[in-house]
Amino acid sequence: MISAWNELACVKRELAARDWFPGTSGNLSIKVSNKPLTCLVTVSGKDKYKETEEDFVLVDQDGKALTEQGKPSAETVIHLEVYKRTDAGCSLHVHTLDNNLISELYAEKGSITFRNVELIKAFGVLDADGELTIPIVENFADLPTLGKVVGEQISADTKAILIRNHGITVWGKNAFEAKRHLEACEFLFSYQMKLLHAKALNLKEVL
Amino acid sequence: MISAWNELACVKRELAARDWFPGTSGNLSIKVSNKPLTCLVTVSGKDKYKETEEDFVLVDQDGKALTEQGKPSAETVIHLEVYKRTDAGCSLHVHTLDNNLISELYAEKGSITFRNVELIKAFGVLDADGELTIPIVENFADLPTLGKVVGEQISADTKAILIRNHGITVWGKNAFEAKRHLEACEFLFSYQMKLLHAKALNLKEVL
Amino acid sequence: MISAWNELACVKRELAARDWFPGTSGNLSIKVSNKPLTCLVTVSGKDKYKETEEDFVLVDQDGKALTEQGKPSAETVIHLEVYKRTDAGCSLHVHTLDNNLISELYAEKGSITFRNVELIKAFGVLDADGELTIPIVENFADLPTLGKVVGEQISADTKAILIRNHGITVWGKNAFEAKRHLEACEFLFSYQMKLLHAKALNLKEVL
Amino acid sequence: MISAWNELACVKRELAARDWFPGTSGNLSIKVSNKPLTCLVTVSGKDKYKETEEDFVLVDQDGKALTEQGKPSAETVIHLEVYKRTDAGCSLHVHTLDNNLISELYAEKGSITFRNVELIKAFGVLDADGELTIPIVENFADLPTLGKVVGEQISADTKAILIRNHGITVWGKNAFEAKRHLEACEFLFSYQMKLLHAKALNLKEVL
Repeated sequence: MISAWNELACVKRELAARDWFPGTSGNLSIKVSNKPLTCLVTVSGKDKYKETEEDFVLVDQDGKALTEQGKPSAETVIHLEVYKRTDAGCSLHVHTLDNNLISELYAEKGSITFRNVELIKAFGVLDADGELTIPIVENFADLPTLGKVVGEQISADTKAILIRNHGITVWGKNAFEAKRHLEACEFLFSYQMKLLHAKALNLKEVL
Repeated sequence: MISAWNELACVKRELAARDWFPGTSGNLSIKVSNKPLTCLVTVSGKDKYKETEEDFVLVDQDGKALTEQGKPSAETVIHLEVYKRTDAGCSLHVHTLDNNLISELYAEKGSITFRNVELIKAFGVLDADGELTIPIVENFADLPTLGKVVGEQISADTKAILIRNHGITVWGKNAFEAKRHLEACEFLFSYQMKLLHAKALNLKEVL
Repeated sequence: MISAWNELACVKRELAARDWFPGTSGNLSIKVSNKPLTCLVTVSGKDKYKETEEDFVLVDQDGKALTEQGKPSAETVIHLEVYKRTDAGCSLHVHTLDNNLISELYAEKGSITFRNVELIKAFGVLDADGELTIPIVENFADLPTLGKVVGEQISADTKAILIRNHGITVWGKNAFEAKRHLEACEFLFSYQMKLLHAKALNLKEVL
Repeated sequence: MISAWNELACVKRELAARDWFPGTSGNLSIKVSNKPLTCLVTVSGKDKYKETEEDFVLVDQDGKALTEQGKPSAETVIHLEVYKRTDAGCSLHVHTLDNNLISELYAEKGSITFRNVELIKAFGVLDADGELTIPIVENFADLPTLGKVVGEQISADTKAILIRNHGITVWGKNAFEAKRHLEACEFLFSYQMKLLHAKALNLKEVL
């Protein structure tokens, strides 16, 4: 479990350096065992820009704390959905301006699809005509409901899900892959926003 | 007082890392005692990106310096209004581009209200239909007048006040909570600006 | 080779600090010998925000690994084109939002030209009426094809090439010069995007 | 001179952390003596993100090197104009996206004036109806000409001058004051750009 703790602490430090935990938002987890399912998850309400010995707590498949560091994140239910439905080893949930913006603008479409942009390679999409689709679900203040809604969107091909005005949940087989997916998503979201502005303003007409 | 000093020094360092003190702007305080009211406040005119033993000075309820580090910030009057009218333990005033921009755009409305965005949870607003309102007051070069005007907007529900083209004042029961409120405000302001651009440009029409 | 390794490690660290390797994208190389041509190139698929002893691998003129650190970047072919056609000693390929955006907006023109902006001096353009042109090529998932297409655009005057939605390749006689060219390009791209927005919005009319 | 060197090295480090020296652009100086006039100025063409013992060279009132660190910045002539016409002790010249953008948009007006924004206090403008004006001059590839043109705009009230598409020159009685002026200018430029966008897009209509 020490190795899992260190792996999660490391990715938390890197995402903190990117300022992806404003106002104590965001939560992270890493799987520790499969049978029974246990994972380390961030403790609720802490300042994730700081590093302490109470940053993570071990939980079981029902989200019950197995160690004493504190209360697990209220959104642990979403992480558990990811581990139950995929072979993911690490799951990351963060709020950024552009993931919130994309989640709002594309909410009615229910998803966003990227193609013809090199960064989708970070998801293993290597074909010239390949594409990457990220589902978008509505936000629910009731977390079991939110967990269920997110869970229903998870399939073998999904690697990330946007929650409307509530950030992204992204995963990978380990912290390295989850972070690679997250960095690529954020680049793609920011790039898409810039392309939309360019299109709305007809920038090609003023070159 | 050493503990209060360290707590304030720590939050100052974190806000400096975010570049929230351009041109020596901004001022911070932390309450040291209730009866009589005393607080540590940033010394006037210093470069808050640097850390020195003269960063803060203890002041009484009238803003008079009780220690020798230097002249208290000219805006100490605003911090005292916060401590006299709330149970806050820490108050932060910073200038950012987006808090200035929101303060200018919404000035005539007198306030800005956020709803349907997850980050308002940082203020303890947990209901699905909850909302967060931040009052906006006009700026006054005369600081006692500004203190009075800010003070009049402070109620039990207020956690932050915008001053037109003059940044935000935000508080919490301690430095941790004040910083959480501030980070959430800045995220909400920046997000609102991006939403306004999206709306003005009809971005949903060009998806 | 130790000196070349250190020079490349140093520029990698500096570009990582700028966040120019999202999602493990980007690749870098430095020439080690001319006859036969060998160079150190980044190992494929690694997190370039981290520093390890397996970051770079020595390759020959056909891109074949001569040391054991791992698989050379799939885009090594582009670096080799640069070394075969110029006297460059270092070649850098990174993805940024604005280099992707410029590559997309100007793709049909086939190039972008800068004039009347001081930063083109970084390319040795010192005359009052001097200019800097950067070719733009289409992206190809097939890397030998991409290498060929990029190679065809390289001439004595070229110092950088944009690949549509796939970032920039830029070079110089050493890592210092390559980085100077890259920093200047990114400034010019971001500045051009801001100028285009200003033009499309007629900002001069609302001063 | 050691103290002046350290003061200049310190401000260089702080501006480097803000990424204000892209592509080796920018130059800095600090006055060492009045009669005769000597100052330390950045050596030409160096990477200002690095710190070395050859970063600065002492020059006389004609810009001639008095020590051996290397060739003085080609724009030393502008720094000397500042010292000859004011009581400044430190002068800073940097390129940022927004100072270039403001210099271009307002070039035909010949200056930009700020009022009703708190940050002009960084220039000692404390009155409710005070204002700050920054002249803008055309750029000249010929540096003696540029020095002359900049010099003609310097008066007792000037603290900063914009050169069209060529950044800002700003000064103060010492490095601390020069940096305060520079940080305030950059905030004001960025804020003005955001206000112009808001105006052009009629953002107040879509609140």
